[in-house]
Amino acid sequence: MFNYTHHIFVCINQRPAGHPKGDCATKGSRDVFKKFQEETEKRQLWEKVTVSGSTCLGPCAVGANVVIYPEGIWYAKVTVGDVEEIMDQHVVGGKPVERLLLAKAMAQS
Amino acid sequence: MFNYTHHIFVCINQRPAGHPKGDCATKGSRDVFKKFQEETEKRQLWEKVTVSGSTCLGPCAVGANVVIYPEGIWYAKVTVGDVEEIMDQHVVGGKPVERLLLAKAMAQS
Repeated sequence: MFNYTHHIFVCINQRPAGHPKGDCATKGSRDVFKKFQEETEKRQLWEKVTVSGSTCLGPCAVGANVVIYPEGIWYAKVTVGDVEEIMDQHVVGGKPVERLLLAKAMAQS
Repeated sequence: MFNYTHHIFVCINQRPAGHPKGDCATKGSRDVFKKFQEETEKRQLWEKVTVSGSTCLGPCAVGANVVIYPEGIWYAKVTVGDVEEIMDQHVVGGKPVERLLLAKAMAQS
């Protein structure tokens, strides 16, 4: 217990409507959070993987933001449609999903 | 940026008053969260250390719960008075604070 191979954090921060920084919740992150939980359950990984919602992770403009530890891999612009790929390729397969890396999104913005 | 040496997560979950599981917010975790932010600022570690609040981390009975990555060191029963020790000994010094480890709290409960 509490000896996870991966701990997935999804920013679930929500700011008032119209706030200039925007937020991840408006970009669908609460559904992303729920989807990570569902996909963890579906793969029966509940003893190996845990999913938490977090306060603002920082790069609001390129949300929804996700960070996975212990690797410290940061993802940007994550949608519900990306979750299965992150679970299969990264969490199970050990290979981060390059196209969703925060560093890539920051370089493009 | 987003290349932190330590990412500190503090459970800030709050349940309705009287809920049998209790919660970390009632045990003062929101002040613990704020204190970690203040101590990070005080040590000018904002480029190396980041602090996030999280949803329920699990071991509610022994909150306030804190987990620090990339090491994946879990702490239990953390109070505002413990934060400077965790910052100095673990985050700066690299040596986890044994007396606050979750594993220790779980063994005793």
